[in-house]
Amino acid sequence: MTAKLYDLELSGNCYKVRLAAALMGVPLEVVPVDFLAGAHKVSPLIDLNPFGEIPILEDDGVVLRDSQAILVYMARKWGGESWLPNDAAGLAEVVSWLMVAENEIARGPNDARLHDKFGTKLDVDLARSRAARVLGLLERHLERNAWLALDRPTIADVACMPYVALGHEGGVPMDGHAAVAAWVRRVKSLPGFAGMPAI
Amino acid sequence: MTAKLYDLELSGNCYKVRLAAALMGVPLEVVPVDFLAGAHKVSPLIDLNPFGEIPILEDDGVVLRDSQAILVYMARKWGGESWLPNDAAGLAEVVSWLMVAENEIARGPNDARLHDKFGTKLDVDLARSRAARVLGLLERHLERNAWLALDRPTIADVACMPYVALGHEGGVPMDGHAAVAAWVRRVKSLPGFAGMPAI
Repeated sequence: MTAKLYDLELSGNCYKVRLAAALMGVPLEVVPVDFLAGAHKVSPLIDLNPFGEIPILEDDGVVLRDSQAILVYMARKWGGESWLPNDAAGLAEVVSWLMVAENEIARGPNDARLHDKFGTKLDVDLARSRAARVLGLLERHLERNAWLALDRPTIADVACMPYVALGHEGGVPMDGHAAVAAWVRRVKSLPGFAGMPAI
Repeated sequence: MTAKLYDLELSGNCYKVRLAAALMGVPLEVVPVDFLAGAHKVSPLIDLNPFGEIPILEDDGVVLRDSQAILVYMARKWGGESWLPNDAAGLAEVVSWLMVAENEIARGPNDARLHDKFGTKLDVDLARSRAARVLGLLERHLERNAWLALDRPTIADVACMPYVALGHEGGVPMDGHAAVAAWVRRVKSLPGFAGMPAI
């Protein structure tokens, strides 16, 4: 059975899953969700994910919420150790960047884009100042490293790249962050890479 | 060499690391950080964690930031599969709850406590409404499950419990959430459990 992704094309979180599938060469059945109608807030989707969000991955009886957790599953099941190692230090290093995707990037460029593109009510000045901070942290890290973790592409890059590259849709472009922009280009040149609108 | 934790006693994130060490029976060298003086924002700590935050774990040449990532490291190195399984589905299920700690709980009860207890400038009404939402989600999950993941204690519980139990310090007590309160009591009764001020 092909794994099923409940998807929204414009969601950077859903895109992470599509990107990982493309990079790992895994076929996905992509099920578009009627997001504007709130299909993710009612049955049957709310029964799969009580948090009322997408992406949701369904695979062989396993149901998973949260894009970062789904990346972990995909790497362990299909991607192999190069995408997510088993050893304590390597695994934790990758996970520490998944947390940047879930925290600093979500509260920064992702929130700013939610405000500008989808009309979500939130403090957009705070989101933009958080975006500037995380872009600065990424820039300094990527001036010395080609990839976020372990000197190679991992799911850390898959998790963190999309909302950084979509920042221009929230008023936080990559201008002045040459190392970040070069890293985004490196991710885009990986074999199998798939894009999304605005990336 | 004993692992070294750069610590603040009142930080729920630092407490997660101390709690995991207690539950896993791992000795830690706890190094108090002068948080009020901003020691985490300058050398030498900023060189260990450019994000300027604690906890930081130093162990055998490995330096890690982010409490959730540190829990992953500790489980893989010391705790064993019962705390964090290796298989794709089990690992991802636990990670999906680590993401709740990093996202919904951080933006909810943790932010509310930062405002009330430490004077952090943020939208405390929004933090409290997010806290109410995640408490409701946890309540419904814990009405049907004794533990967050895999029907047993895992690092998911270690990651999520502290700021839920500290919610009363941010105006979001557990009142009316009997299943959440019972779960906190279950965590507190685990062999080796260690508390912190206000828990």
